[in-house]
Amino acid sequence: MTFAPGWTGRIPCAVLGATGSVGQRFVTLLAEHPWFELTRLCASPRNVGKPYGEATRWVQACACPEAVATMELVPAEEPADEVALVFSSMDREVAGPIEVAWANAGKLVVSNAASHRMDPDVPLVVPEVNPGHLALMDTQPYAGGILTNPNCSTIGLVLALAPLERAFGVKRLHVVTLQALSGAGVPGVSSMEAIDNLIPFIPTEEQKLATESAKILGTLEAGAITPAKLVLSAQCNRVAVLDGHTECVSIELGREATIEEVRAAWDEFRSEPQELGLPSAPEIPTRYLEAEDAPQPRRHRDLDKGMACVIGRLQPCPVLGWRFVCLSHNTLRGAAGGAVLLAELAVAQGRLPM
Amino acid sequence: MTFAPGWTGRIPCAVLGATGSVGQRFVTLLAEHPWFELTRLCASPRNVGKPYGEATRWVQACACPEAVATMELVPAEEPADEVALVFSSMDREVAGPIEVAWANAGKLVVSNAASHRMDPDVPLVVPEVNPGHLALMDTQPYAGGILTNPNCSTIGLVLALAPLERAFGVKRLHVVTLQALSGAGVPGVSSMEAIDNLIPFIPTEEQKLATESAKILGTLEAGAITPAKLVLSAQCNRVAVLDGHTECVSIELGREATIEEVRAAWDEFRSEPQELGLPSAPEIPTRYLEAEDAPQPRRHRDLDKGMACVIGRLQPCPVLGWRFVCLSHNTLRGAAGGAVLLAELAVAQGRLPM
Amino acid sequence: MTFAPGWTGRIPCAVLGATGSVGQRFVTLLAEHPWFELTRLCASPRNVGKPYGEATRWVQACACPEAVATMELVPAEEPADEVALVFSSMDREVAGPIEVAWANAGKLVVSNAASHRMDPDVPLVVPEVNPGHLALMDTQPYAGGILTNPNCSTIGLVLALAPLERAFGVKRLHVVTLQALSGAGVPGVSSMEAIDNLIPFIPTEEQKLATESAKILGTLEAGAITPAKLVLSAQCNRVAVLDGHTECVSIELGREATIEEVRAAWDEFRSEPQELGLPSAPEIPTRYLEAEDAPQPRRHRDLDKGMACVIGRLQPCPVLGWRFVCLSHNTLRGAAGGAVLLAELAVAQGRLPM
Amino acid sequence: MTFAPGWTGRIPCAVLGATGSVGQRFVTLLAEHPWFELTRLCASPRNVGKPYGEATRWVQACACPEAVATMELVPAEEPADEVALVFSSMDREVAGPIEVAWANAGKLVVSNAASHRMDPDVPLVVPEVNPGHLALMDTQPYAGGILTNPNCSTIGLVLALAPLERAFGVKRLHVVTLQALSGAGVPGVSSMEAIDNLIPFIPTEEQKLATESAKILGTLEAGAITPAKLVLSAQCNRVAVLDGHTECVSIELGREATIEEVRAAWDEFRSEPQELGLPSAPEIPTRYLEAEDAPQPRRHRDLDKGMACVIGRLQPCPVLGWRFVCLSHNTLRGAAGGAVLLAELAVAQGRLPM
Repeated sequence: MTFAPGWTGRIPCAVLGATGSVGQRFVTLLAEHPWFELTRLCASPRNVGKPYGEATRWVQACACPEAVATMELVPAEEPADEVALVFSSMDREVAGPIEVAWANAGKLVVSNAASHRMDPDVPLVVPEVNPGHLALMDTQPYAGGILTNPNCSTIGLVLALAPLERAFGVKRLHVVTLQALSGAGVPGVSSMEAIDNLIPFIPTEEQKLATESAKILGTLEAGAITPAKLVLSAQCNRVAVLDGHTECVSIELGREATIEEVRAAWDEFRSEPQELGLPSAPEIPTRYLEAEDAPQPRRHRDLDKGMACVIGRLQPCPVLGWRFVCLSHNTLRGAAGGAVLLAELAVAQGRLPM
Repeated sequence: MTFAPGWTGRIPCAVLGATGSVGQRFVTLLAEHPWFELTRLCASPRNVGKPYGEATRWVQACACPEAVATMELVPAEEPADEVALVFSSMDREVAGPIEVAWANAGKLVVSNAASHRMDPDVPLVVPEVNPGHLALMDTQPYAGGILTNPNCSTIGLVLALAPLERAFGVKRLHVVTLQALSGAGVPGVSSMEAIDNLIPFIPTEEQKLATESAKILGTLEAGAITPAKLVLSAQCNRVAVLDGHTECVSIELGREATIEEVRAAWDEFRSEPQELGLPSAPEIPTRYLEAEDAPQPRRHRDLDKGMACVIGRLQPCPVLGWRFVCLSHNTLRGAAGGAVLLAELAVAQGRLPM
Repeated sequence: MTFAPGWTGRIPCAVLGATGSVGQRFVTLLAEHPWFELTRLCASPRNVGKPYGEATRWVQACACPEAVATMELVPAEEPADEVALVFSSMDREVAGPIEVAWANAGKLVVSNAASHRMDPDVPLVVPEVNPGHLALMDTQPYAGGILTNPNCSTIGLVLALAPLERAFGVKRLHVVTLQALSGAGVPGVSSMEAIDNLIPFIPTEEQKLATESAKILGTLEAGAITPAKLVLSAQCNRVAVLDGHTECVSIELGREATIEEVRAAWDEFRSEPQELGLPSAPEIPTRYLEAEDAPQPRRHRDLDKGMACVIGRLQPCPVLGWRFVCLSHNTLRGAAGGAVLLAELAVAQGRLPM
Repeated sequence: MTFAPGWTGRIPCAVLGATGSVGQRFVTLLAEHPWFELTRLCASPRNVGKPYGEATRWVQACACPEAVATMELVPAEEPADEVALVFSSMDREVAGPIEVAWANAGKLVVSNAASHRMDPDVPLVVPEVNPGHLALMDTQPYAGGILTNPNCSTIGLVLALAPLERAFGVKRLHVVTLQALSGAGVPGVSSMEAIDNLIPFIPTEEQKLATESAKILGTLEAGAITPAKLVLSAQCNRVAVLDGHTECVSIELGREATIEEVRAAWDEFRSEPQELGLPSAPEIPTRYLEAEDAPQPRRHRDLDKGMACVIGRLQPCPVLGWRFVCLSHNTLRGAAGGAVLLAELAVAQGRLPM
């Protein structure tokens, strides 16, 4: 399949908040995307009118695509007719009403910002975990629609939890995160605070992990989400890793399980993105590594194009039953890549206004 | 008090395993100690005969004391008459019988090695937590004696636990450690594995945390230790921090407590080392910091000469009841400094053969 | 000597720009200074009225002194009667007129800011290198006076050069700096740009090294400085080191010299701060280390209280004659410590208005 | 072109020293190479018989190709008939005679080891710089042949120099390197010495830069290389960067040149690998970046598949005439990638025994 189902060319897209670290990842992913074409880069007023390459403090390990570097930045506030799909990585402070404006203009907004995540009529989706929640869009008042991508630490966690929830149920869990610096954006964390140090605090992260996980694992009935009854406690740390969030999990399942059953739940987990063959879908969404010192951010964050949740160190836990470690790439799977996959899912489900 | 109680001069000491990273800390601490005098530096056969400064790959942020740098390394296997007190930081593989030889020769061996920690007749001691366990030495067959210092990650944890155990009892806890590189010694972890990375595995560490904590918090009766009934699950990580182990703890106490009571347990905790005014004792052994982003390794590991357990982020935990973060300097409080304090305690209790 | 010569108590001091990274070093040094007493902490308008500890993003490896943490920040613009000596580490953009205001009010301002460094009537001084330049203050129109501390990378370099200039003359040199992150202040360099990276550019640094070095090594005659005729080319890099600037130097001396002569020039170098026994003076200002892998920032930056220029790797250079590596602590010797030593020199020379 | 010129399938290759950090890069590059097929992995005796994936401490940011991970390691000492081309990244201590054995067995050995680099009959080649030197192989006594790849810091430097040498001549230069940790192999530099530190010393590196550069830029006449008359002084530093050597160069050209002429020399430089369209050849071998803060290791080392020499910061230098900064990926262009390109050149020149 060259183009998206039902399309005879690539779908024109805009990125809102294109200069930030997640925006840079959107730019990189869309520059080579088979279904989507980046036609519009929007930024905050102080950068409007500048070429993208000049306005952006580029922090990716690859170079900025040259065709994109010369594109002129335009205002985010003005929905553009020629665009069908909009990726938003604006700051939470400004994202809310601008996203609504594009949705009202008939566009599908896929947002990585936190503004609308907990809105009752906005799906908060990890494509492998709750693809059915896209139907919640039917209750939205917009000509277009708004879809949201969860927080980066939530995405990796719920990917690891989803197969366990399906197979055994999940009752209680304690999570300690070791999160990468790129999650704080650019400039983000000062190097004076990152090197030879860690910071045991990320504002609002511990709460987001609990509330977002409950919504994603919840059930959609009668046009509303009922959150999952999940007892989740999180302690979040920023560590000196550039990309890749590691999470140490201790978990109580809904029923007894053998270690082989738990492993099988992850190994066999496939979902709608895999069945539909979406371009950004990882082949194996929850990939277990046998090595006793895996997963590690630098070695494993890029597995399956950075879209896998990589798991290891499954062991019995005397406190809650099981413990394990999972890792996911926070600006790919946990942000831009997750949002692109979500847009692919929406297109494949026929939810893009044509 | 200038000299140790009952002494009219400084007590002559040897360090076994002086060239390693913990050995280097012993050297630094003993170079300026009011009670102890470093008179003998012992190393492995390949380094015997070399000046200390030449044989040692020095990795401390301060320079090696010059008087020590020129001392000649001698074999560890031969107990020396003039020495009364021996600090051991030898590798586990060789430490066991050498430490016994010195103890048989009438010396007090204070060891940071793991060889004898779990021996039934060897005290495993954190001076503020179980100073009474030194009496277990009475059951030893040696002319001298052997005392052991716990593993670095255990020390910080049990310091934080002791006031809670005293005040409320401790039933269950889940610990995730973020441990410093110096804990792996020199050369230890390759820079290619440490930078932009973390390793979610430290061999035998997760087990040691459980077994050592139970022994330390256990009770001494009729010449034997009964381990504490503690359910402890640990997940141990190596992170890109030079010194200072951080531990994220979720804990179930033995009874209901208010947040003020928990805080008071730490704030008011003082023990035998503080009462005796031991030279290396921290003024406040469990020091709680109010800042929402504390404790941090680089900023707080050196508090109270690197001998405090620094605690922060106490919050209710929906899974086990309470959660908090603690930090201790792994090569000071968690190794050399802890062993020196333990030797001071033994001397002050009159347990040094004179 | 307890107090400064001619004083019967400690001299009351203010710090302007107290919350920045150099300001934090001033606070630390003055908290324990035998001659000076920190009585006033000044900050920018947005921080005025707050306690110092609350307004400051503390990045030192030691804790902020508690007595200072509770001091209330006051405006920098208003000279205070009770203060005799003023340390300035304000941003260049605002420092100029504020420093003049304090000088007009009769105070001695010792500034680490760049504003007045190249003013014809303002001494730019490294105390061991050009202590005689303080006499240039006599040409100033102020009731008090202004003294300036050079840029951090200049200080280390001219310390290494001064003994060579004295003994052989210096004709040409090429310098490549590997500068620490603390030189960029707080937040300074983003961790996303510092880890697994270096930046081969520091704004205006390459020029400053040349122009400041020429002024410091110049001669004071008839109330004016004639810059040294020095051909200096610099390439400046920011590397992932927290503190300590390393500089690789290739140099052409004014006459032939043996390697022993060059070494002797550094080994024997002592100057006015050593002769006067100033409290912050390093015992050995240019300290040569024999080890083939010295100097290293983490191991050697703190030698002699962080006030030494540590040198190593002297070798013949086929291009210019000699090459070597020098290191100095950029926020101690290269900023706050250098300024405190300069103030001590001024006091000892009787240049503090009493 | 699918296969190499004159071949109807992929050329079978062996890697000697496959488990090291350069060996890992060979494995990664050959796993996807259009001309070459990796059929044999050789290692030191202690690893023979083990699967590659198990014996190797993998430190690449990508995962080890699975087909390779399961290959069994065989001894390096025994030349294998089915192999035509051999890549060597063995330690210098053992490489010499083993490489000769394979050459005697009729194989073409392309070596990244230092053993034979300075042999009079062994070409030391950077494909864009001295492709004609391959003719020196005609003087070798082997049924096959030996080709060598220079040291990693030399490769980047001579790539930057070659266009200047062609256009203006190069008389004298001073180089300060800021070299990546991967250049020291695995485990290589201890993390305790790499973090918050740099090491101003790399054994034999300063000499290698001078002698290897002179040989590469030398002329082949009458079956022998006459080294270039180049005055080169180097100071080599290890910095906390994972991959990518940065070099700060001050240089005296053979004649006056304008800044436009120097830029044009680099911009227009193309050589035999580009003309032949070799699979691993960078499109632009000396790529100048305009940004004032370029080149940076993390952002630019991967340009052109990690095969470019990236240059920036060209400025007049008051000491030698010009100064600039260049960067090249030390384990790609500077080791495995450079050797693969060299093998491609030899094949395209018809020098592979068939």
